[in-house]
Amino acid sequence: MPASRLLTGLIPAFRRMGRPTGSSLSRSFAVTSGSKAQTIFSGIQPTGVPHLGNYLGALANWVALQKNADPQDRLIYSIVGYHAITLPQDPRRLERERMDIMASLLAIGINPERSILFHQDQVLEHVELAWILNCMTSMGKLKRVTTWKSKLAVARNDGTDKNQDDGHLSLGLFAYPVLQAADILLYKATRVPVGEDQRQHLELCRDLADVFNRTVKSPIFPVPRHIITPAKRVLSLRDPMQKMSKSAPAANSRILITDSFDEIAAKVRSAVTDSTRGITYDPISRPGVSNLVTIISGCTDESIESVVERLADKGHGELKGEVVDAVESKLGPVRREYERIKQDEGWIREVGRRGAEKARALAVETMVDVKTRLGLGAL
Amino acid sequence: MPASRLLTGLIPAFRRMGRPTGSSLSRSFAVTSGSKAQTIFSGIQPTGVPHLGNYLGALANWVALQKNADPQDRLIYSIVGYHAITLPQDPRRLERERMDIMASLLAIGINPERSILFHQDQVLEHVELAWILNCMTSMGKLKRVTTWKSKLAVARNDGTDKNQDDGHLSLGLFAYPVLQAADILLYKATRVPVGEDQRQHLELCRDLADVFNRTVKSPIFPVPRHIITPAKRVLSLRDPMQKMSKSAPAANSRILITDSFDEIAAKVRSAVTDSTRGITYDPISRPGVSNLVTIISGCTDESIESVVERLADKGHGELKGEVVDAVESKLGPVRREYERIKQDEGWIREVGRRGAEKARALAVETMVDVKTRLGLGAL
Repeated sequence: MPASRLLTGLIPAFRRMGRPTGSSLSRSFAVTSGSKAQTIFSGIQPTGVPHLGNYLGALANWVALQKNADPQDRLIYSIVGYHAITLPQDPRRLERERMDIMASLLAIGINPERSILFHQDQVLEHVELAWILNCMTSMGKLKRVTTWKSKLAVARNDGTDKNQDDGHLSLGLFAYPVLQAADILLYKATRVPVGEDQRQHLELCRDLADVFNRTVKSPIFPVPRHIITPAKRVLSLRDPMQKMSKSAPAANSRILITDSFDEIAAKVRSAVTDSTRGITYDPISRPGVSNLVTIISGCTDESIESVVERLADKGHGELKGEVVDAVESKLGPVRREYERIKQDEGWIREVGRRGAEKARALAVETMVDVKTRLGLGAL
Repeated sequence: MPASRLLTGLIPAFRRMGRPTGSSLSRSFAVTSGSKAQTIFSGIQPTGVPHLGNYLGALANWVALQKNADPQDRLIYSIVGYHAITLPQDPRRLERERMDIMASLLAIGINPERSILFHQDQVLEHVELAWILNCMTSMGKLKRVTTWKSKLAVARNDGTDKNQDDGHLSLGLFAYPVLQAADILLYKATRVPVGEDQRQHLELCRDLADVFNRTVKSPIFPVPRHIITPAKRVLSLRDPMQKMSKSAPAANSRILITDSFDEIAAKVRSAVTDSTRGITYDPISRPGVSNLVTIISGCTDESIESVVERLADKGHGELKGEVVDAVESKLGPVRREYERIKQDEGWIREVGRRGAEKARALAVETMVDVKTRLGLGAL
């Protein structure tokens, strides 16, 4: 099936809404620098209901792309279950969290008519392309990009980030960035919104696209470029030296996007700040206060400077009141939508199934080409 | 679909023929030690037309199993294309060799009504299970079993076997044994005919079966056992210190199973022997002569002792005459069958397609179970 027909089939309900003004997201990138339609790919682990850091850091951009990308651009968002199992998981929890993240993505506004939204683990071609790329990735190259993953594993296991021999780590964790490259290349993605901590993984993906193309002497894969997004880096409410994290022991260190008003208020009220008077933005010496300013800015699209100017003389209590209001204004509609969607689990499953079908149609097209060029085509 | 129904469906044309007497193969193993039906899995790389070493070393056992295994036993033979690409391949040659190995397996007597005969690369579940096992395999464990693979890679690249840093090797080569474990476990195989050089790979597979079962707290995978087969180790005709090898530069170092009588005769006549008179079996000090005795024994099922006793006083010329006759008696029918089969490429393709369908039905059954237990089941 030609890509253009597929694309047309996927977006009948989508109408260009124009770029909203005043949004920091809308000012940040021009996806369609040329006239050629782009394919944008991004993935998220099935971590259950996302927290505010996930939302403002990445997922809000997914929604913004639906408005800001050209209607010709293809948007592909994946819940990456194959990546989740690179660390030990409780199966029942993982299954529930795969449902919850899908419901969350729908609740924040991912439109399955506009974007291909699917579970990676329902499209086997991801691991097939990963295997093929494994065969083109030297061990040495991979060792150089996996430092942070080792640290992640150690951190998840014992809470420290000391270096350790990689002998204890799994091959899956080591091969994680190759699977990530496969995710992207499988759809011939041209643009990938990535955070700073994923930049070297995208570099590996770009390298593998090039290696593959040179191996088969044909430009099968576009070399994907990153999209710089104005993502907010939201920190823990309890330890503002750390990112807000799903795995941190203290539940009140993070705000889930489905938290009730009372939960939001309680967590914000207990947020760590400092004993300095007034409100300034100084992430190094005032991380707690600065994080709260970031959250206001992220939830309201008001600039950091404007927030600080407006609240300069206020106390921490007033700052926290503003945070509660800003978060509730952002998350209230999401929470209500989430609760509505969760009433209809059949529809959530159906969205996943249809998304996987659309994704697989594209994936198969790529893999027929890839395998034929390697001598592994259908006989 | 229950396994028993599938099995019944696969073997309607199979009739137990009884165990042949006098064959060294028939005396060698009792697959059905208990009353439970066994699943036997083996794979071969798509190396094109096999040579006599492949045939007497492994493939003859595949055919023998069709006669010697219990009719209830399931036989699964795979042409492992995903493994082939762990080393660089010429795509056109690989495609042709995948066809040629399939035709060869049919020519030696693999019966696609009795055995499931298929291309691994047409059943994506192999790489899916491999990914899952990657996540349960520590880097350290894998480093300990890959020594010979490193050496193989080096040997293929520069002809030496010096040790070298694994940084130059591909992740695919490193992960090779995990894919091999997936091949076996995907069909819940209970018995695996393996040569000595593959024993540590089977140990890894047994270990991974156990790790998986303990992880999901359920005996999903039988822990497979090896089948000891009386495989003949056939050496190069030019350098009888080396195994007969497809990749050796000298074409007359190996006999292909499709070689004409004249080719067989010419290669045997030029085989390296020694200047000692008479025929003895002494692989250390008389490797060339001993190899020719092995070939006679392998082709005729006459014991080594009997061959040596019969030819003790003969000259090397007479020994070679016996070798030519023995090889021709074994390979003549194979060659004629191969030529007949090659007339009908459509049928060869059809066999592969039907084999892949049967294999996939079993593979999907396993993977539904595996993924559900990991929390990656269908939603």
